[in-house]
Amino acid sequence: MEAYSNHTSLATTLRQRRQRLTKLIDFPVILWSGRSIARNFAANPYPFRASSHFLYFAGLPLENAAIRLQGTSLELFMDEAAANSKLWHGETPTREEMAQKIGADAVFNLSELQSHSDGAATVAVQDVTTYWQQTQILNRPVSPADGPTGIDLDLAKAIAAVRLCHDAGALLELRKAAAVTIEAHQAGMRASQTRGLGTQHPSEALVRSVMEGVIIAHNLSCAYGSIVTVHGQVLHNHHYQHPLQAGDLLLADVGAETEMGWAADITRTWPVSGKFSPTQRDLYEIVLAAHDACIAKVRPGIEYLDIHLLAATVIAQGLVDLGILRGKASDLVEMDAHAIFFPHGVGHLLGLDVHDMEDLGDLASYQKGRVRSLRFGLGFLRLHRPLQTGMLVTIEPGFYQVPAILHEPKLRSKYQDVVNWERLNQFADVRGIRIEDDVLVTQTGNEVLTAALPTKATVIEQFVNNH
Amino acid sequence: MEAYSNHTSLATTLRQRRQRLTKLIDFPVILWSGRSIARNFAANPYPFRASSHFLYFAGLPLENAAIRLQGTSLELFMDEAAANSKLWHGETPTREEMAQKIGADAVFNLSELQSHSDGAATVAVQDVTTYWQQTQILNRPVSPADGPTGIDLDLAKAIAAVRLCHDAGALLELRKAAAVTIEAHQAGMRASQTRGLGTQHPSEALVRSVMEGVIIAHNLSCAYGSIVTVHGQVLHNHHYQHPLQAGDLLLADVGAETEMGWAADITRTWPVSGKFSPTQRDLYEIVLAAHDACIAKVRPGIEYLDIHLLAATVIAQGLVDLGILRGKASDLVEMDAHAIFFPHGVGHLLGLDVHDMEDLGDLASYQKGRVRSLRFGLGFLRLHRPLQTGMLVTIEPGFYQVPAILHEPKLRSKYQDVVNWERLNQFADVRGIRIEDDVLVTQTGNEVLTAALPTKATVIEQFVNNH
Repeated sequence: MEAYSNHTSLATTLRQRRQRLTKLIDFPVILWSGRSIARNFAANPYPFRASSHFLYFAGLPLENAAIRLQGTSLELFMDEAAANSKLWHGETPTREEMAQKIGADAVFNLSELQSHSDGAATVAVQDVTTYWQQTQILNRPVSPADGPTGIDLDLAKAIAAVRLCHDAGALLELRKAAAVTIEAHQAGMRASQTRGLGTQHPSEALVRSVMEGVIIAHNLSCAYGSIVTVHGQVLHNHHYQHPLQAGDLLLADVGAETEMGWAADITRTWPVSGKFSPTQRDLYEIVLAAHDACIAKVRPGIEYLDIHLLAATVIAQGLVDLGILRGKASDLVEMDAHAIFFPHGVGHLLGLDVHDMEDLGDLASYQKGRVRSLRFGLGFLRLHRPLQTGMLVTIEPGFYQVPAILHEPKLRSKYQDVVNWERLNQFADVRGIRIEDDVLVTQTGNEVLTAALPTKATVIEQFVNNH
Repeated sequence: MEAYSNHTSLATTLRQRRQRLTKLIDFPVILWSGRSIARNFAANPYPFRASSHFLYFAGLPLENAAIRLQGTSLELFMDEAAANSKLWHGETPTREEMAQKIGADAVFNLSELQSHSDGAATVAVQDVTTYWQQTQILNRPVSPADGPTGIDLDLAKAIAAVRLCHDAGALLELRKAAAVTIEAHQAGMRASQTRGLGTQHPSEALVRSVMEGVIIAHNLSCAYGSIVTVHGQVLHNHHYQHPLQAGDLLLADVGAETEMGWAADITRTWPVSGKFSPTQRDLYEIVLAAHDACIAKVRPGIEYLDIHLLAATVIAQGLVDLGILRGKASDLVEMDAHAIFFPHGVGHLLGLDVHDMEDLGDLASYQKGRVRSLRFGLGFLRLHRPLQTGMLVTIEPGFYQVPAILHEPKLRSKYQDVVNWERLNQFADVRGIRIEDDVLVTQTGNEVLTAALPTKATVIEQFVNNH
């Protein structure tokens, strides 16, 4: 909670956010934080995560609270802790102390929210119980966050505009998340030759435990379900049961989230033996070349789509050079041949959400009037806007051999002639490679918040070998 | 998933559970697993946790699935994975393979569930979206799990009766959870003198990271939010920000949950310096005496309330011996004076839930006709039944100096004469002590599943000192 205090106070940061919002709308706003959600019974909930829109304007992860914004005024609605709460949860800051910390002009019980709700817009929260309360209190239907209507749509657009570019308070938190995530990845690299617990070989689970352990030790949480796998071709792989074998590449996509909810998102891929095989090194260098080329291109005014296409082109050219693809890189990208091996987008917005504002669908990440492409090589692009100063994006090209793609009859037939399948077979020891960094768009170009974590193959090898 | 296969197959275990259930009811049953729940946006959910009742009868943590039980027949309702799921999630076992593994007689799409739902009872799940589906598919109101009505109440009673005593399949899982939890606590003790990450002193967060790291490294999850605190007097303390100071006792209440959902629940309290102070040792020995006396009493036929009262009596007597309480132990317990320092119950049921079947309210844990006491010293007792062979309970007496109790004017006035407040002041270096083990009721008495973890003060000290 101290991050803001060395610079601008939390209350000041929040007031500035309201000032930016109120220039875009002329109606009051109520934002709910949500409540903790039962896991297997009510007293055993998942760790509470406040709604990101609430966190942006309220600053603190208050449970079962709401804020009302009108112009630059801020009102906090939450109940005092129950009398017996002190027995189970100890002394907590009073409602008034929290109101002061965030610069609220007034504080009310939740029961008073309804009488302050006239004409207010909101964003639907993820938690279904609170969502139901939103419709009750506002006394009208509230559409889900990814399909808002009326003033809720106007509000979503305004919030998207305000949250798109990060202020100093946000950047302090984002840098903190990045720093801890870098440490987690360094520990993960060093741990992959560690002997496993009760097993002869280390396992994916062991490396995950070391990486998440760093995040927990810093008293932060994971921003998303970690991917720590020797089967990097499974893009959203949340299993960790495989032992690490000498010839494996390990792909680790792990990120920390600060107490106030701000995320980091880093992926590295390393050889568990401490040395890339020649084929692994060849493909790693292609992905790294795409990564470096894309980052070099990040600056205000550049279309993110062009960065994605640059990644696709560098990967296609690299695969041509290796003899895996045949033809001219630009033609291959035109026909989506890159997507056989790089089927996802080059990255996404990053902020309070690891895919920032994805609860709003594509409202924040797609420029007005733009919609998802139906093309195999473009449809998974999560961001389609010109970059602006203060935006934080990930750059995360990859190379994967996904059986569901390589063995899909239609795709195999379509790309029969541009893929040298025999040559590809020689790269069977590469299932998945991804290199992902968090890149802040600055006035003069960009700053890689996660640059302290190595990407060069030789330096990665040194880390794994504990040198 | 292999745990059962060395002994009885999962399919056989599940059939035996249906055989026990069908003796108690004469209507069909549909149990839903639930779905993953969005954290901050839909694609970033909390880790999925299937409903415990589903897990008990379906054996596998299948997402968005239902089972229908009638007599000893088992039908599985779930949809095949979507075509593009393989891209993101890789190859997963087919529906038919899962049906075979659990011994299902038939498998259907979820859309066919409604036509198989006539006259079926259910238990409401925790996940609100699935709960809404339950009422839609059954085409009738379904009361929450802690207040079932009609055949749902009959079903809840029958399930409570079946789940109360554990079978061999359950015990294999429960022993696995206990073994990993023991390892986590040993690692925690050894870690509490470790230098912290980026700090001069180790912190609660660091010890937590080491303990949860063991659980993650075994590819298990935490059964509940860990408590790792030098403020053990805050009974449900889920903050980890305090540095460990030389004179502190650290209370760690951490437990693993297996992939199939079975839990362990262990608490230990140790001096971070590696040596109890004389006052800490005095009070630790009292809690340990209560712990040992209670465990010695666990056997079939014993009222769990009597075990709770035994803990209260041993603690009261110990405090009299130390000069903190005045009077006769039995009188002190009669007037709830023990509860000033031991305000919770001596334990609870343990199984698929860390408070087993607490989703059903007190239906499973309170014998028919019994209700919660209004007495300060008894009202928090979570289990009030005679013990039976196969029940697994925790035994977890404690001593706490809770400001909300000690400074509560009414309580302070009521117990003015029985507490020697000046003497109590000499024990200010003890904020909270709890010692908790998992005890299986056996035909001849009991077996402590967590006995391999030391409780003796001198042995605990050796662990902390890494001897």
